[in-house]
Amino acid sequence: MDRLRFLTAGESHGPGLCGILEGIPAGLALSTEPIDSDLKRRQKGYGRGGRMKIESDRARIYSGVRYGLTLGSPICLLVENRDWQNWERGMSPLASDAGGIEPVVRPRPGHADLAGALKYGHQDVRNILERSSARETAMKVALGAVAKQLLLAVGIRVMSYVRAIGEAYTPLSALGGHDPTDLFRAAEESDVRCPDPSVSGLMRQAIDKAMKEGYSLGGTFEIVATGVPAGLGSHTHWDRRLNARLSYALAGIQAIKGVEVGLGFEMSRRPGNEVMDEIFHGAPGYFRKTNFGGGLEGGISNGMPIVLRAAMKPIPTLRRPLRSVHLQTHEAMEAAYERSDVCAVPAAGVIGEAMVALVLADALLEKFGGDSLDELKRNHHGYMEYLKSR
Amino acid sequence: MDRLRFLTAGESHGPGLCGILEGIPAGLALSTEPIDSDLKRRQKGYGRGGRMKIESDRARIYSGVRYGLTLGSPICLLVENRDWQNWERGMSPLASDAGGIEPVVRPRPGHADLAGALKYGHQDVRNILERSSARETAMKVALGAVAKQLLLAVGIRVMSYVRAIGEAYTPLSALGGHDPTDLFRAAEESDVRCPDPSVSGLMRQAIDKAMKEGYSLGGTFEIVATGVPAGLGSHTHWDRRLNARLSYALAGIQAIKGVEVGLGFEMSRRPGNEVMDEIFHGAPGYFRKTNFGGGLEGGISNGMPIVLRAAMKPIPTLRRPLRSVHLQTHEAMEAAYERSDVCAVPAAGVIGEAMVALVLADALLEKFGGDSLDELKRNHHGYMEYLKSR
Amino acid sequence: MDRLRFLTAGESHGPGLCGILEGIPAGLALSTEPIDSDLKRRQKGYGRGGRMKIESDRARIYSGVRYGLTLGSPICLLVENRDWQNWERGMSPLASDAGGIEPVVRPRPGHADLAGALKYGHQDVRNILERSSARETAMKVALGAVAKQLLLAVGIRVMSYVRAIGEAYTPLSALGGHDPTDLFRAAEESDVRCPDPSVSGLMRQAIDKAMKEGYSLGGTFEIVATGVPAGLGSHTHWDRRLNARLSYALAGIQAIKGVEVGLGFEMSRRPGNEVMDEIFHGAPGYFRKTNFGGGLEGGISNGMPIVLRAAMKPIPTLRRPLRSVHLQTHEAMEAAYERSDVCAVPAAGVIGEAMVALVLADALLEKFGGDSLDELKRNHHGYMEYLKSR
Amino acid sequence: MDRLRFLTAGESHGPGLCGILEGIPAGLALSTEPIDSDLKRRQKGYGRGGRMKIESDRARIYSGVRYGLTLGSPICLLVENRDWQNWERGMSPLASDAGGIEPVVRPRPGHADLAGALKYGHQDVRNILERSSARETAMKVALGAVAKQLLLAVGIRVMSYVRAIGEAYTPLSALGGHDPTDLFRAAEESDVRCPDPSVSGLMRQAIDKAMKEGYSLGGTFEIVATGVPAGLGSHTHWDRRLNARLSYALAGIQAIKGVEVGLGFEMSRRPGNEVMDEIFHGAPGYFRKTNFGGGLEGGISNGMPIVLRAAMKPIPTLRRPLRSVHLQTHEAMEAAYERSDVCAVPAAGVIGEAMVALVLADALLEKFGGDSLDELKRNHHGYMEYLKSR
Repeated sequence: MDRLRFLTAGESHGPGLCGILEGIPAGLALSTEPIDSDLKRRQKGYGRGGRMKIESDRARIYSGVRYGLTLGSPICLLVENRDWQNWERGMSPLASDAGGIEPVVRPRPGHADLAGALKYGHQDVRNILERSSARETAMKVALGAVAKQLLLAVGIRVMSYVRAIGEAYTPLSALGGHDPTDLFRAAEESDVRCPDPSVSGLMRQAIDKAMKEGYSLGGTFEIVATGVPAGLGSHTHWDRRLNARLSYALAGIQAIKGVEVGLGFEMSRRPGNEVMDEIFHGAPGYFRKTNFGGGLEGGISNGMPIVLRAAMKPIPTLRRPLRSVHLQTHEAMEAAYERSDVCAVPAAGVIGEAMVALVLADALLEKFGGDSLDELKRNHHGYMEYLKSR
Repeated sequence: MDRLRFLTAGESHGPGLCGILEGIPAGLALSTEPIDSDLKRRQKGYGRGGRMKIESDRARIYSGVRYGLTLGSPICLLVENRDWQNWERGMSPLASDAGGIEPVVRPRPGHADLAGALKYGHQDVRNILERSSARETAMKVALGAVAKQLLLAVGIRVMSYVRAIGEAYTPLSALGGHDPTDLFRAAEESDVRCPDPSVSGLMRQAIDKAMKEGYSLGGTFEIVATGVPAGLGSHTHWDRRLNARLSYALAGIQAIKGVEVGLGFEMSRRPGNEVMDEIFHGAPGYFRKTNFGGGLEGGISNGMPIVLRAAMKPIPTLRRPLRSVHLQTHEAMEAAYERSDVCAVPAAGVIGEAMVALVLADALLEKFGGDSLDELKRNHHGYMEYLKSR
Repeated sequence: MDRLRFLTAGESHGPGLCGILEGIPAGLALSTEPIDSDLKRRQKGYGRGGRMKIESDRARIYSGVRYGLTLGSPICLLVENRDWQNWERGMSPLASDAGGIEPVVRPRPGHADLAGALKYGHQDVRNILERSSARETAMKVALGAVAKQLLLAVGIRVMSYVRAIGEAYTPLSALGGHDPTDLFRAAEESDVRCPDPSVSGLMRQAIDKAMKEGYSLGGTFEIVATGVPAGLGSHTHWDRRLNARLSYALAGIQAIKGVEVGLGFEMSRRPGNEVMDEIFHGAPGYFRKTNFGGGLEGGISNGMPIVLRAAMKPIPTLRRPLRSVHLQTHEAMEAAYERSDVCAVPAAGVIGEAMVALVLADALLEKFGGDSLDELKRNHHGYMEYLKSR
Repeated sequence: MDRLRFLTAGESHGPGLCGILEGIPAGLALSTEPIDSDLKRRQKGYGRGGRMKIESDRARIYSGVRYGLTLGSPICLLVENRDWQNWERGMSPLASDAGGIEPVVRPRPGHADLAGALKYGHQDVRNILERSSARETAMKVALGAVAKQLLLAVGIRVMSYVRAIGEAYTPLSALGGHDPTDLFRAAEESDVRCPDPSVSGLMRQAIDKAMKEGYSLGGTFEIVATGVPAGLGSHTHWDRRLNARLSYALAGIQAIKGVEVGLGFEMSRRPGNEVMDEIFHGAPGYFRKTNFGGGLEGGISNGMPIVLRAAMKPIPTLRRPLRSVHLQTHEAMEAAYERSDVCAVPAAGVIGEAMVALVLADALLEKFGGDSLDELKRNHHGYMEYLKSR
């Protein structure tokens, strides 16, 4: 992420979240509407905890946009934490407020709690969990929504849907010949964001059971990007490979334990002759009849939809707590419990869209340059014309 | 990769490969021995093509080392291509040699060939395949061998073994309670680098069948790093997360289509209470009895062995060729054939070790700083003592 | 700037400025006091325009600090623009407010106005000048104040004073054997931030004259950092050289047209034997009796105070306007006039301190690592002890 | 330097120098001719030591070029050290050769020697001076020559000439209305690279005197880039400012103690109304009649020639040695002496060209993207047409 850079900041119960996105060209139409829409999509989903109702996130555009158009300067977004008033003392930046609330001293397995407390020298795990919390993903989503607007301007669309929650699994996939837009549309109408109505029911059942028995569930989601021209990314150096950059971004989301491109792990089990996307040429230029590779060959987009999958582990905060140890006394005790979701896979897909959009926007600007949307589009158009001549 | 940087260069049939590694502290013992040893490990493996016999790679230390110790200046390694003499005309940098050999005009599905030729505007696919070739991984391995020496100096060891080739699969894993060093030792004695002798046989059979029938096979390998203290990486920003950085590096290897950490995709299927690594404290400080998370929680190493898996697709070059199209005439034809391996998963594990070692060395230097090995060790030691006090 | 990263955002008449600083260790005492103090120092100075009275900047710590200590997570600071209420329409992000105020169509020579409008495709120069404005430097100062706190924790202090305003010039310099702390203290008591009382008078006279006659004045300031141990930066690669990184940061400040280290340009005029800092050894270890090099040799700090100078051009906005051209009609007209200062060199010194502090903090963390202040200090202490043994 | 990256490696008396340049588009004509030509220009100059005769550097293109055209893959260049055979033992990478020659134990003031030895923990200063040596600049020049070829393809030319050696100084400057190409052509015919024949004589005299009396001389050189369109760099963030990036690159050259843009320090002394480049519009679009700003306003190129100056300190190695201290015994002694030049300012200008070319090529690619020269030129052309419409 060089051409497009961003940093996020903010604790889960601090005043709010902040993000700065630097490198978006000038002249892009931008309002809070698509950002808030994605923030809302992130908050929905069967199996979310009570907090999702509290929040109803809304972004404030603090800089970088004037009269509905980006300026070319850094875009700063703010998203308030709605329950900040309840935490003003507990999360106060002032030394004089120290000890406003009880410290968290029973680190939760599966979270950054213990490793973070050791690394940063904290005695109160709250000093870690406030930042490692999935709350931060709201800002990822907000910034990703800006990147999506840029991509849309050149016909690139990033979508997601849930493939599995726990053991409930749908074979419906963009790889299987299904139109990604159809899958996406169906998923958007499901409260588990699964495009397969019959499996949606199984997923809800699994969540109900987990909720009742006090455990949590993970799952997998699929991200598809359509309209990506052949030629983003590069084979020339490992860190320029688009599949690697996309994997980095997805693996950088809280709770993600695996990422795959196209057929992914399944591809490693099948013979080579069955999983390569043969090359044809016709009216529209080069094309493929299959997409085992998920739109990426040799680290470069090949013009087919980009298809990625990520595995989210179950949220480690469980009502039925795990064994842990007191941070000062080393006594065995149950891990701390912070209000949490039973299943957040539907939301994770939305977060995944955001990260994928940010990486694709970076790769787009890397290839086409452009300081204004007009310039980007002119350069993109010139290349699309060239592609037709090949 | 900020504290430690590297670039590689070189075409598959050019004069050789070059790599520059910048940021290794001074005073580290370094010779070509461990580098050549890893280069050799990369060349072995049942199912490799004829080229592996030609090559027998050896590294030349071109800079950054004097009297067996690193200087602190950039380390440059060169690995000659042994058959360069046969390609001096075909890969000549001189304009006057243009057309020395026939251009490659039938792009191979699954390779960077077509997407690369479109992106970079080439009419001869050789201009892409020479760099996208897995030959480049020899330099990754060479530079990774240097990183391994640094890691060893603070007790960190990076190992790999093959988990699957095609459908032949071993359940033996560092996650399953097996000692990674034992698995590694067993794997090193197997020509498929599989620690499970019975499965090794199945793997060889699968390769024999593929060779006979003209197709190729992929597979999965597992990387384990032992001795990593709790506290590398960070939860504070997505791109500092160690799991994400490791995934980036593995996904940046040619032919890798999926990466997972710890239980990975399997973790997303199981209930939350079954896959968290509960926390205990005893004589050695904090410890876990399980390692579902693969040594990483919240993007930070937690002191358990780091365990990663990557999926390699079958090599797309097949003796039984795939359908393609002539790059100028657009006539349907069979894809080009370049000498290739039937299965390179054993080698891929060695390459994976290298990339993991480079990322861990970067994360180590990020946490501990240090311009000389003495300084790095002093800072590391101070932290290890502190850990004991927690 | 890799170990420590930051982005700033905000337009001059937007709601405010925002900055995110990522990489500060945990456990550093931080309040708004030192930040606001530096913000105030930036706003002072003889010759400032009316806006300085309006503003009276104060920082809000939005994230990264709890109970007076840094958390290790990104530190977000916000500084409101006090006259935002007057600009809510003119700088509105909403498309529906478009045209709320007259566009600026007469680009001002010497500013980013014209080049920026061409680059970003704007027809209204306000879309450029709002970001290129020196208003942004308030956030540089705020983030720099955080970096200063980190440096102070290991005994490093960054100070500045004005050496010249227009032709009024003081020979007093840290290079000339004067104690930098004395110079700094004297400068802080002067409203032109000049340590030389007699020259301060001349500077004020020059400003009075410029104000009366409707022109502006630039000048030079000197930055000194004391307590920097030998060994920050590196000779091994151009972009690791500390003098280059410091020059980058100072040259990145609005209106800076020149940067020099130690004797700088003067050093290029004198014979070699007169300008090298000979080496001695005594009770405190190695030392120098002179500091022509400004504390930097071969891109590495050498233990002497780091001394830099920067040249600020006169502010290009003049009451007596310059010739320009209408951006749409191309008619010759006078350049636009935005409220501005006559001389901002005293403030520029404070901004220079901030940028130098950010670079030194980055270099410090690069060498010593450390995720908590304790760890940083332990590593720093170990190195200082080692230095004594040399 | 993100879009274009490079690393250099190599010790002064090691086998040679290596550089990898990553990010140059495909299809650029490249041979060793322009590289060797610049390497030769770097080696010339009145006042150089004996080594310049030994060397006669020539570059080998090791990767990234085929049949006279760049491939888009990393370009690796090698430049052998011609006297390596004399140093095979003294600079051997083998532990068994340790102590092949006497260690250097009397650090030279003004060099990285002492600070480097302390930082990296070396007892033999040779371990520092081999890398800090100006020998490394040969690779900067070689890589810069590649960047120049890219720039030439879009009409950008980077030139330099010497403005001062010691106190001998010419007022001839691109800022003073002189055509930079004329100045450059005249400089190329002078063995001190000064465009002013009468001053050339004074410079030679100064060098003769210094040589006779055993001291060294520094000086200043000016770099001009013509053909740079308005719009490279950016005002939006400090590290995107083109003047800052150029200053970084020049300050990163060995022995540079100051950098200025346009009028630079002189600009800080004059009243604002005298030093702004007023804006006009005519047949060719916007233009200026003056160039006080050196082609850069608000961190963005404005279409005028870019003019920079750098100050080189006298080379610290003096035949008449400086006082130093034995690194082990701490006894006062004379500093070590390594064969050196009396004056290297003419060469420094050539090195400055290289660094400026690399930064401009990076900024060019950042704005225009482009993976092939055709694509870069198409995007560049589209923007130039747009500029005409403004």
